[in-house]
Amino acid sequence: MKFLDFFRSKRPSSASIAKERLQIIVSHERRRPSTPDFLPSLQKDILEVVRKYIQINENQIKLSVDRNGDCEVLELNISLSDPGKK
Amino acid sequence: MKFLDFFRSKRPSSASIAKERLQIIVSHERRRPSTPDFLPSLQKDILEVVRKYIQINENQIKLSVDRNGDCEVLELNISLSDPGKK
Repeated sequence: MKFLDFFRSKRPSSASIAKERLQIIVSHERRRPSTPDFLPSLQKDILEVVRKYIQINENQIKLSVDRNGDCEVLELNISLSDPGKK
Repeated sequence: MKFLDFFRSKRPSSASIAKERLQIIVSHERRRPSTPDFLPSLQKDILEVVRKYIQINENQIKLSVDRNGDCEVLELNISLSDPGKK
């Protein structure tokens, strides 16, 4: 399964299809228990980086974290219905 | 299909399973042709942010970009076989 197919299968309904969106997924597989869990900090930094290019408010961001054993997946969905506007 | 299942289905073979890894996927759906394509710059910035937390060399990074119409997907696979070591 290609990544693009995966994202397309998650495409929103026609009601919101006119919206622009940015989706960022970070998956971290840790093998050593001593390795720091930097995902929460990385998440904040990535959002700061995204804000260099587009204006986003907190209510445009949907965040979810999924964890299973040694694998942690962070998902950021950013709705860009009004890109570039402050 | 859950994100975690998706990532797990892409898990490497047992030969490389001892390795730690970080996977970052950025999907940008653009609706306005005039919206700038900031993904190449965002990719560099995200890598810089990741380097705040872990030491990575260029040869640890596998990058792919997939585009289909108004949807562009950037995939960064970072092998962290020796995390924290310069």
